[in-house]
Amino acid sequence: MRRVALVTGATGLIGRHTLAPLRDLGFEVHGLARLQADLRDPAQTRAALDAVRPTHILHCAWDVTHGRFWHAPENLDWVAATLRLGRLASACGVERFVGVGSCAEYDWTDGGTSARRETDPTRPATLYGLAKNATRELLAAALPPAGVSFAWGRVFDLFGAGEAPGRLVASLLASLRAGRPFVCRHGQLERDYMDVRDVGAALAHLTASDVAGPVNIASGKVVSLAALTTRAAALLDRPDLLTVETVPLATQPQTMRADVTRLRQDVGAPEPEDLWQRLAQLAGCLR
Amino acid sequence: MRRVALVTGATGLIGRHTLAPLRDLGFEVHGLARLQADLRDPAQTRAALDAVRPTHILHCAWDVTHGRFWHAPENLDWVAATLRLGRLASACGVERFVGVGSCAEYDWTDGGTSARRETDPTRPATLYGLAKNATRELLAAALPPAGVSFAWGRVFDLFGAGEAPGRLVASLLASLRAGRPFVCRHGQLERDYMDVRDVGAALAHLTASDVAGPVNIASGKVVSLAALTTRAAALLDRPDLLTVETVPLATQPQTMRADVTRLRQDVGAPEPEDLWQRLAQLAGCLR
Repeated sequence: MRRVALVTGATGLIGRHTLAPLRDLGFEVHGLARLQADLRDPAQTRAALDAVRPTHILHCAWDVTHGRFWHAPENLDWVAATLRLGRLASACGVERFVGVGSCAEYDWTDGGTSARRETDPTRPATLYGLAKNATRELLAAALPPAGVSFAWGRVFDLFGAGEAPGRLVASLLASLRAGRPFVCRHGQLERDYMDVRDVGAALAHLTASDVAGPVNIASGKVVSLAALTTRAAALLDRPDLLTVETVPLATQPQTMRADVTRLRQDVGAPEPEDLWQRLAQLAGCLR
Repeated sequence: MRRVALVTGATGLIGRHTLAPLRDLGFEVHGLARLQADLRDPAQTRAALDAVRPTHILHCAWDVTHGRFWHAPENLDWVAATLRLGRLASACGVERFVGVGSCAEYDWTDGGTSARRETDPTRPATLYGLAKNATRELLAAALPPAGVSFAWGRVFDLFGAGEAPGRLVASLLASLRAGRPFVCRHGQLERDYMDVRDVGAALAHLTASDVAGPVNIASGKVVSLAALTTRAAALLDRPDLLTVETVPLATQPQTMRADVTRLRQDVGAPEPEDLWQRLAQLAGCLR
């Protein structure tokens, strides 16, 4: 049976890395980029769906402007746009809708003492987390009764080619390459990092599966920011430029780790590449 | 200082009863009815705001088609429309935005053993409750940082002139007047009922106040459905037509009562009229 995937946010950091894996999984793939259609405009959204007639939607589009998206009021526009896309999907005969959520939906007030499972309580601490969580709850309640299969990939930390210059790994590599010192202020924090190519592959597998509800998109392992930055400095042979501090940070959990049982066993997504291998590729030491 | 209120859903069951109380509180009042502007259309919403230039918005509009609104997918359209209205409000210099929420936002899984306070946990059991609760959380997080004061009236049970024919009190009165028997199946349930005129007055006072966050719109007292229907049958002198049963209903809490401390003390809304007096007026025995 012909399967046609529409990927929104197709030129965004995550979306662009879902296209090839979706093709490999047998989809006819249509990427929808910001410049082609503004999903905040109902008429443009409708026209895009009518043009492609997708059987599957992988909705990666959202405003994640680095440094402001956690509390930006534009999150409300993307809740509205995403709900509208979900409503149109059911009106247009779409079989499956997969949205991109976030580890920021979980309750981390315990500091992250255990790996988060998809059934664990949610309690977003930011407007972004609140917006993603509310969108998920509403679509999960509304789409299946309308005949649309629904899943939600909860993405944890990531790095990768094309990320915003202000993000940790991008700014670290840029500093080291330019011979500028770099201070990692909170080296004690542990995060579940994946390369964005592995994030894209996992979302493609989730789209191709029939697993319903939230699914963590992560590696299941954590790395400290100290280890991550130290490894990057070693790869670029500039350990002298890196200072690792361990300044306490009360507003952030010590550890953010995903339980990836659903992703591996139910979705059947492959293990991500070795993180240091990915970091080395990104640092340009291996191609 | 001139205060201009825009009331959405102004011809709806609740909205129409907010207009006179708002005028009495000193507002220049503009009602926006469904036929004037479709709030689900961004351009029409913008035009309505530009025409009125309100200082206050009381947003009563929502799709509450009797018999289907609890689980209707249209709830998603109204989340989107309400978030858009909130975003436009902050762009258009609106000082205060008051939304209409619902007792369906609360966690009632304990059966309603105590009166609900605004700080009690939420846990909606319906798509409608989920939609109202999500809208509230998002606007409460986004509007105050944008300089817009935000409040949310959580309306409990109500009856009144103009309600849908299928609702309890309307269908009861219609049956009794027509000489048809009426069966109250779940007479044991206790609900915090108000006449919609008192609901409208309470929302007008909430709009005129500067109280932030959720505020219960209710009487603080409960009446059993047995007592309510028995009183109505007595008022119409047709107790013979009424059968009160007490069939258990696992899907509904036994009691839904509001704590109205915030509404009375912080908002300063007046006590509602005596419920039996209001019921008698509605039954046409008093004018």
